[in-house]
Amino acid sequence: MNLEATIRNIKDFPKEGIDFKDITTLLKDGKAFKCAVDQIIEDLKDKNVDVIVGPEARGFLMGTPVAYGLEIGFVPVRKPGKLPAETEKFEYDLEYGTDVLEIHKDAIKPGQRVAIVDDLLATGGTMGAAAKLIEKLGGEVVAMEFLIELEFLNGRKKIDNYHINSLITY
Amino acid sequence: MNLEATIRNIKDFPKEGIDFKDITTLLKDGKAFKCAVDQIIEDLKDKNVDVIVGPEARGFLMGTPVAYGLEIGFVPVRKPGKLPAETEKFEYDLEYGTDVLEIHKDAIKPGQRVAIVDDLLATGGTMGAAAKLIEKLGGEVVAMEFLIELEFLNGRKKIDNYHINSLITY
Repeated sequence: MNLEATIRNIKDFPKEGIDFKDITTLLKDGKAFKCAVDQIIEDLKDKNVDVIVGPEARGFLMGTPVAYGLEIGFVPVRKPGKLPAETEKFEYDLEYGTDVLEIHKDAIKPGQRVAIVDDLLATGGTMGAAAKLIEKLGGEVVAMEFLIELEFLNGRKKIDNYHINSLITY
Repeated sequence: MNLEATIRNIKDFPKEGIDFKDITTLLKDGKAFKCAVDQIIEDLKDKNVDVIVGPEARGFLMGTPVAYGLEIGFVPVRKPGKLPAETEKFEYDLEYGTDVLEIHKDAIKPGQRVAIVDDLLATGGTMGAAAKLIEKLGGEVVAMEFLIELEFLNGRKKIDNYHINSLITY
């Protein structure tokens, strides 16, 4: 199935000059959505993954069906203040300024094999931060899975010590 | 399976006096997560649902695996400014002030049968607003599915013209 044909391009969103890849047109197409989730599951099925981690909020959209399909658990990584129990934090650089991600301290057990799933690999900042959080808790990041990779942003360079799989590349 | 046993109570979150129901302990338990998603799928499977709608962000966590399991599409309802294409908006009352939810105008086709899935039925405000958005676009809300219902908040009263199913009640 041609997944790329189900992605919508939105010019100048969220600001001028950015060609935004809208995944909602893929999500609402039941066949395309199932095909995308199944392709990620296929890439993970021989990796003995214990748990899926997905960053808020679009990482939830792909990560939870992958966890469900693999019959394993899902752990959210969120913006500060959203997770109710004790958290581990990681601050990372953005183009302008910094951002912080959190994970529950008891979300990952030492030695667990973790796959991170997100909608988009852009600069790799979010993904690098999520991996750091998992490793702080003693987990092992065995794969990073993306619906879309923006190759021209070279995000892969920041996380080139991990297994990376992207379904659609630009 | 006793799903309630996998929910964590967090006292005084996000503010004093609130006994927060933390669903992340259910999500990270692969068996409990699959059981919860399967129970929602079971309730929906004879309702000829065309598409699942889930409100940002925790509605994504339960809604997308349900859509995947039913092999149908998923449509996100989001806070203002997050959806890139043309949207329909709905403003609704909170305890103090108001909030706005958005849906893409082309997300639902007239006549489509829609189930809304969310983690929590509290006062029913979000759910009522999501239903209004779907109906504005010509969709028919055939079910509302919740992981948790806080019965003491009487949210059901606001949406008592819809089929409601909750897996865990307090």
